Amino acid sequence: MTLPRLTEARAPLTREVEVVDEHGEAGRVSIPAERDLTIYVDRRELVTLMTLGAQPELLVLGYLLNQRLIESAADVESITVDWEVGAAAVKTHAGIDRIEERTAKKVVTTGCGQGSVFGELMAGIDSLRLPDTRMTQAQLYALVNAIRLQESTYKSAGSVHGCALFTLEDGEQARMQCFVEDVGRHNAIDTIAGWIAMQPRLAGGRVFYTTGRLTSEMVIKSAQMGVAIVVSRSGITQMGHEVAQRVGLCAIGRATNRRFLCFAGAGRLVLQPELAGAKA
Amino acid sequence: MTLPRLTEARAPLTREVEVVDEHGEAGRVSIPAERDLTIYVDRRELVTLMTLGAQPELLVLGYLLNQRLIESAADVESITVDWEVGAAAVKTHAGIDRIEERTAKKVVTTGCGQGSVFGELMAGIDSLRLPDTRMTQAQLYALVNAIRLQESTYKSAGSVHGCALFTLEDGEQARMQCFVEDVGRHNAIDTIAGWIAMQPRLAGGRVFYTTGRLTSEMVIKSAQMGVAIVVSRSGITQMGHEVAQRVGLCAIGRATNRRFLCFAGAGRLVLQPELAGAKA
Repeated sequence: MTLPRLTEARAPLTREVEVVDEHGEAGRVSIPAERDLTIYVDRRELVTLMTLGAQPELLVLGYLLNQRLIESAADVESITVDWEVGAAAVKTHAGIDRIEERTAKKVVTTGCGQGSVFGELMAGIDSLRLPDTRMTQAQLYALVNAIRLQESTYKSAGSVHGCALFTLEDGEQARMQCFVEDVGRHNAIDTIAGWIAMQPRLAGGRVFYTTGRLTSEMVIKSAQMGVAIVVSRSGITQMGHEVAQRVGLCAIGRATNRRFLCFAGAGRLVLQPELAGAKA
Repeated sequence: MTLPRLTEARAPLTREVEVVDEHGEAGRVSIPAERDLTIYVDRRELVTLMTLGAQPELLVLGYLLNQRLIESAADVESITVDWEVGAAAVKTHAGIDRIEERTAKKVVTTGCGQGSVFGELMAGIDSLRLPDTRMTQAQLYALVNAIRLQESTYKSAGSVHGCALFTLEDGEQARMQCFVEDVGRHNAIDTIAGWIAMQPRLAGGRVFYTTGRLTSEMVIKSAQMGVAIVVSRSGITQMGHEVAQRVGLCAIGRATNRRFLCFAGAGRLVLQPELAGAKA
């Protein structure tokens, strides 16, 4: 299949600002950049996203996919991002059918409480068939450690959500394929979706890691990306839990060092309690 | 002025789910509830919010205010929430002028990356006049300590954002007037806005505390609520910083124990470095 042509627009991810601390002393710290990116599809304005701006083309592609406005990356001819004007111009091959109608209904979801999803959030979720991915506890620990070692904007500036896509092969360590940060966690997972869409031959089971909570939207988006195992440093909400159970997705939360809680789909996790160390 | 009649719909805020931990042991933990609430204004469907559900009527009122769909609580005759059907029926006195038009433009903001704000996010922000609120370092420490002692869903179930409104009188400790938690931080601040709208005679300077990041939307909403000082346990994003500087709002982040960083509006903070203790 033909993949879209993407620009590689870049912009600084942090900026230094002056602060005063509790000792009354002035200093400078880095904070994450945050810029608005207005998406135009075939010259029609669709939406404005606020983003860190690390991989805007993949964000836009993943956003269109996760909103189910396009079926695959092949529907898109090109995505051209210009930070000078804060615009992402999407050129499709055949246009987007009934785009007005499909972007009309607003469901405001939980990521931050008010993420915007066009169309029915749960639409088509029961038709999702997840791959038969399984992960050992050893692979989980290696994955969490890889995140710990990852250089990041979070370490230098804080206030961003991070997520990553890992692939699994039997008996091997999980391989981090893509690490994304954004001021918003939905942007981060959408960027991962865009990255996956540009890798048609990606092999192995897929595991999604996020620093954020496992909300219904995060779980649904993961399932849509063919991810059967999600791992979070944070917890899970009730609807995230319900959706995970409904689609048979393994949801692991509170994952730090050797600790974790498996909230759903424990059958996909090969437990190795002997690796957990002494009980607290 | 006549305040709207509000129901007091209640629903459980947590639920217990089964988990498996790193030792392979099954257990039960509480997770935050998360339910959808569809807002109907004068029988017209407006939006669906995903919420913890603690104070849905105040959430709806604050949402309408922060989206600038109503001028004041007095525009609303009643808000009736029914969890059986997940609906909030808003009855206005005179309808909402041009509601289709005003809810048409989508700006997807950063709270989670994709919060939904109708209308221009920045519209009217330059006309905002903030009160002359000042806070001493001692008052800040007492405020942060009050949050630490607050009983919360977060402590029992995690995965929720918390925020609170404090009022300040010269020389007195900040008084916590309202503490709100939600699965989404925008819901939490909107609920605070709804609470304020129901207190027309609220006296004292206003300080807003949030566990979440200070994004542009959080800063703008605070300013709209007459709050001149915001305090966060977390950090600030670039646009949150720019908006705070633009409206002269004091933005304090990384506030834990005796530590903090003042990112903007330091003139409103009466520094007392002698209270900070020894330098790390």
